[in-house]
Amino acid sequence: MIRKYVFGRPFETGAVEEQIGETQGLPLYGEIHSEGSFLFRYVMRDGDAVYGLGEANRGINKRGYCYVSDCTDQPNHTEDKRSLYGAHNFIVVSGEETFGLFFDYPSKMTFDIGYEKTELMTVSCERADLYLYVIEGESAYDVVRQFRKIIGRSYIPPKFAFGFGQSRWGYKTKEDFRNVADGYRSNRIPLDLIYMDIDYMQDYKDFTVNEEEFSDFPAFVAEMKERGIRLIPIIDAGVKVEEGYPVYDEGVRGGYFCKRKDGSDFTASVWPGETHFPDVLNEEAANWFGDHYRSLTDQGIEGFWNDMNEPAIFYSQEGVRELQQVISSCQKMERGMADLHKIQQTAGGLANAPADYRRFYHSVNGQKIRHDLVHNLYGYHMTKAAAQAFGRIAPNRRFLLFSRASYIGMHRYGGIWTGDNHSWWSHLLLNLKMLPSLNMCGFLYVGADLGGFGADTTKELLLRWLALGVFTPLMRDHSAIGTRDQEAYQFGDTEAFRSVIETRYRLLPYLYSEYLKAVYSDDMYCRPLAFVYPEDAFACGVEDQLIIGDEIMIAPVYTENARGRYVYLPEEMRFMKFMKDGCYTEQTLGQGHHYVEIAVDEVPLFIRAGRCIPLVDAASCVDEIDMRTMKVIGYEGARYERYDDDGIHTDSQVTRTIESL
Amino acid sequence: MIRKYVFGRPFETGAVEEQIGETQGLPLYGEIHSEGSFLFRYVMRDGDAVYGLGEANRGINKRGYCYVSDCTDQPNHTEDKRSLYGAHNFIVVSGEETFGLFFDYPSKMTFDIGYEKTELMTVSCERADLYLYVIEGESAYDVVRQFRKIIGRSYIPPKFAFGFGQSRWGYKTKEDFRNVADGYRSNRIPLDLIYMDIDYMQDYKDFTVNEEEFSDFPAFVAEMKERGIRLIPIIDAGVKVEEGYPVYDEGVRGGYFCKRKDGSDFTASVWPGETHFPDVLNEEAANWFGDHYRSLTDQGIEGFWNDMNEPAIFYSQEGVRELQQVISSCQKMERGMADLHKIQQTAGGLANAPADYRRFYHSVNGQKIRHDLVHNLYGYHMTKAAAQAFGRIAPNRRFLLFSRASYIGMHRYGGIWTGDNHSWWSHLLLNLKMLPSLNMCGFLYVGADLGGFGADTTKELLLRWLALGVFTPLMRDHSAIGTRDQEAYQFGDTEAFRSVIETRYRLLPYLYSEYLKAVYSDDMYCRPLAFVYPEDAFACGVEDQLIIGDEIMIAPVYTENARGRYVYLPEEMRFMKFMKDGCYTEQTLGQGHHYVEIAVDEVPLFIRAGRCIPLVDAASCVDEIDMRTMKVIGYEGARYERYDDDGIHTDSQVTRTIESL
Repeated sequence: MIRKYVFGRPFETGAVEEQIGETQGLPLYGEIHSEGSFLFRYVMRDGDAVYGLGEANRGINKRGYCYVSDCTDQPNHTEDKRSLYGAHNFIVVSGEETFGLFFDYPSKMTFDIGYEKTELMTVSCERADLYLYVIEGESAYDVVRQFRKIIGRSYIPPKFAFGFGQSRWGYKTKEDFRNVADGYRSNRIPLDLIYMDIDYMQDYKDFTVNEEEFSDFPAFVAEMKERGIRLIPIIDAGVKVEEGYPVYDEGVRGGYFCKRKDGSDFTASVWPGETHFPDVLNEEAANWFGDHYRSLTDQGIEGFWNDMNEPAIFYSQEGVRELQQVISSCQKMERGMADLHKIQQTAGGLANAPADYRRFYHSVNGQKIRHDLVHNLYGYHMTKAAAQAFGRIAPNRRFLLFSRASYIGMHRYGGIWTGDNHSWWSHLLLNLKMLPSLNMCGFLYVGADLGGFGADTTKELLLRWLALGVFTPLMRDHSAIGTRDQEAYQFGDTEAFRSVIETRYRLLPYLYSEYLKAVYSDDMYCRPLAFVYPEDAFACGVEDQLIIGDEIMIAPVYTENARGRYVYLPEEMRFMKFMKDGCYTEQTLGQGHHYVEIAVDEVPLFIRAGRCIPLVDAASCVDEIDMRTMKVIGYEGARYERYDDDGIHTDSQVTRTIESL
Repeated sequence: MIRKYVFGRPFETGAVEEQIGETQGLPLYGEIHSEGSFLFRYVMRDGDAVYGLGEANRGINKRGYCYVSDCTDQPNHTEDKRSLYGAHNFIVVSGEETFGLFFDYPSKMTFDIGYEKTELMTVSCERADLYLYVIEGESAYDVVRQFRKIIGRSYIPPKFAFGFGQSRWGYKTKEDFRNVADGYRSNRIPLDLIYMDIDYMQDYKDFTVNEEEFSDFPAFVAEMKERGIRLIPIIDAGVKVEEGYPVYDEGVRGGYFCKRKDGSDFTASVWPGETHFPDVLNEEAANWFGDHYRSLTDQGIEGFWNDMNEPAIFYSQEGVRELQQVISSCQKMERGMADLHKIQQTAGGLANAPADYRRFYHSVNGQKIRHDLVHNLYGYHMTKAAAQAFGRIAPNRRFLLFSRASYIGMHRYGGIWTGDNHSWWSHLLLNLKMLPSLNMCGFLYVGADLGGFGADTTKELLLRWLALGVFTPLMRDHSAIGTRDQEAYQFGDTEAFRSVIETRYRLLPYLYSEYLKAVYSDDMYCRPLAFVYPEDAFACGVEDQLIIGDEIMIAPVYTENARGRYVYLPEEMRFMKFMKDGCYTEQTLGQGHHYVEIAVDEVPLFIRAGRCIPLVDAASCVDEIDMRTMKVIGYEGARYERYDDDGIHTDSQVTRTIESL
């Protein structure tokens, strides 16, 4: 049962696809104030859990902290951060009363879920202009499935996007990319994708390729593809201000950029220096920007990652003027620390300044809308623009596409990666915890930078993180410039890395099948134990294990120098450890608590009682997987309905095959 | 068996008290290069653990990362940080070969313990001027005990220092302090100490008290003491440059400050603005500085915390000149981001700049020594100066004294708190992991800022953290200005806070007894399970439980929204949960793995098989504990030898009483 309440004059975000009539009055749950600002208040009971919020910090159960939906280029995901890159305003209260709430509101919104007062949940925003969807259901999981139905079908990438990818900010030349390809191929570690971070471009100009380093780019793309490797370039939100650069010239001519109040094009400095932001909320501008992806698809490119699309701003001209004023008045440091602080704070506060987000406007259906009022839609609409252009560029063909910033609705057009994490053990666990929450909000093609983006990783951390990454649809190792080399062949003991990454390919038919099932039934690809075993009070509190698809549970190791970990089995399961050379061990474990030993080169999983999964031989890339090597492992007598398709076309028929043991 | 090797011309740090003859040749273990720079290399075996490093980041077993001894004012203890406030160069390799190494070297030193290469340990420093102590023993624990014997007896604080203390950067007036006292007393939550952070001083001048806010300070100290509460002021390293301020005038006159190469007093800006650093490595200057503590002890003060003594530097005049040059050349931002980055980096890099640590000198026995060569001794010698002054000010009386920066040797003069942590769950666990490592290096009176210093805490985090703090000798709730109020009465449900903090007082006779035993036998107050159950391979890997004293094990909850946790019992134990109103539950659990439920208002502990511990009624402060209420809990027939003393005098006789059940 879904009720839609309307407050004020909401902006049409396009998050919800289904037509739902307006319900008059107020929801049964909570208490609402909607005069000027908006406030929803609910008194939680002991034991209530609150799920949702997609790409948010901390636990699967969001109780106990405060979160702010405000898409932010936040490079330091410590536990106290309240905003990350996404804005996913869907929550589910699970307890004596169970209901879901979707606040369709594209500006900043605060979710205090028992932070100020343990028992109080308060959701609030500055303007009472929003749609509130209230969903009643039998369980939290039921509420999620109802919500998923109204927001439309999730994105399906091409099958190659389920292969393993390597990325690094700092690859600059053909040689850099060839070295990565050689490193993987010569060490016989599977690889499907190499990501091209900002340095492939000419002066960071979108839709250009550095001609000096990448002469005859199409031939280079083909050379890589010949080796089973796709190159996946990054596209940033800002378009470099440079006369003679066609994208800039067209944008200015067409009036496609976001404008200041006075009608001039708003300038934000980002990687290329001064840029303008395409007004992706404007249909014409979005179409224009999207069509530019063709310049790369025409050269053989089959996928993209959209970045810096919160949109991130290093500084604006207005911000710089303020800094210059501060510097002038403080340069002599006559007031000592106070002056130094002022300089430091002003210089440090230039990036992503709220004031800048109030300095530019979108033009939507003839209306000027100040950016901050629709801030959380930018990455979504940039990604939608690309996806819709792909439909024109190559109708019926799937492209790999994922984004950093997002809002619910974008899940129909692409995936997301969870941004600039760090090489911290705590971020391995955070990666796990985010996955089901993202799924609740429709984002199925998701993953984190395995091994960690910022800071220096270690061999052990990367191996353990990859063993989680085996199960995330987007499986990518990515790291920042200036950090330790992080490719899987950089640490010695490549056998261990080969073994872990090969396990991904051996499980790929299962993972892909479960992904398709989740998409076509508007379901979750990975679920918290609470959704699968709601009657099991202990299972409901487990925050470091997940159910992947219908047949397996995972319990990765996320602590340093550990020989294994504790795991809770809500039912009997078959504990599998995947090892080198295609070997595995299996052991039946009863319902209850166990400590299981897991070496750093092993990938553990648990097959649920009475289930089985398909397994194939590893291959160097997805296209090389030989389905004739398939066998079935798990419980004897079990059957598995395996979904598959051609992995290429948007209208590919899904085949369903019964595999049994 | 301890061997002392001499390389080059070591600086006499005073870390080791015992006279040990020099051994010629090279150690049996590892490989040493000592030409110009120094390097020790050891190939670790699979399964070797490496302990030690005191106040270092990450695990009890230090394998897998790289640590740098370089006392640093580091306010952001994320997992990747290699240097914190202390420099504790003692490690123990535990495996087929078991040995300890103490590198007595007071400048920057790097410990790569399997970071670059998993199996390789490399300890290195720039100059081959050091003592290397190599300790052979039967076990890691045996090595530690041998080491502890040569570095001298650890500090014993007065007994009141085992009470609970409240602190906050931001208490400014008598009223602020009275409010805290009222908050605790009116809610009947025990409290012994309120810490005075920098705002009690007049313009942040050491050994002054703001006369306007604290008129008749001795009467205020007495008023608080009347209520069972000691005020513990902070003392910073830097002395404000201000003519007419006696400490400054005397320091200049006596030549007691650190000097530039040209003989002028080095100026560093810290809280008071421009300051000079007392040359605490110079005996005469140290005596002079130490004697100034008398200005506060004469007013009734019985304890201090020494801060900013890495020494922390906000900026130097030289640094500011460099910034001004950078600003002049970059202010127009003609090179855009490059210029902004330069301004940001120069402004952000002023603090604790290595260049500044090369700009000033100490005068030791007539020799000028550049600060960076002895950097890690500053906090140690400042604290030693205070402790030795106390011996002159009030011979035979114990003072509470702890420091932020430290080096081995300082453990004889005071304790340490582990600096500016955050309100992160990961820092609760880090607190636990640091404790035994600190004990290995002699630091027994230690604790972390419970609830977290930086960022906003939550009720649940604070309660769980306090439940660990119950067992740390220094038990203090401390938070930064601008963060959420963090006193135990700020969250409602004061019953829960009362219950947890009262448990500290109920256990105090045991904790104090075990502390005394540890000191007088040069032993550890808290040990990793590996030291107590070395034959139990599983126990050796446990990193989230500790043995406190000889009789109990602790296993605190360190995750949000948890109903309990897993715990490993190397032997049968009696699981106790302390609850409100002096109640507790007990349950005998067998050897092996268990999941135990622990509510947020409960304090869990495990009494080892066949042991017992004393328990008293809670009291509002240590002085109010009524020993006549003592009973004994644990295993029937068990005996406990309880140590006690008068808690006041340095030469108080220890009484030993047999308590039995």
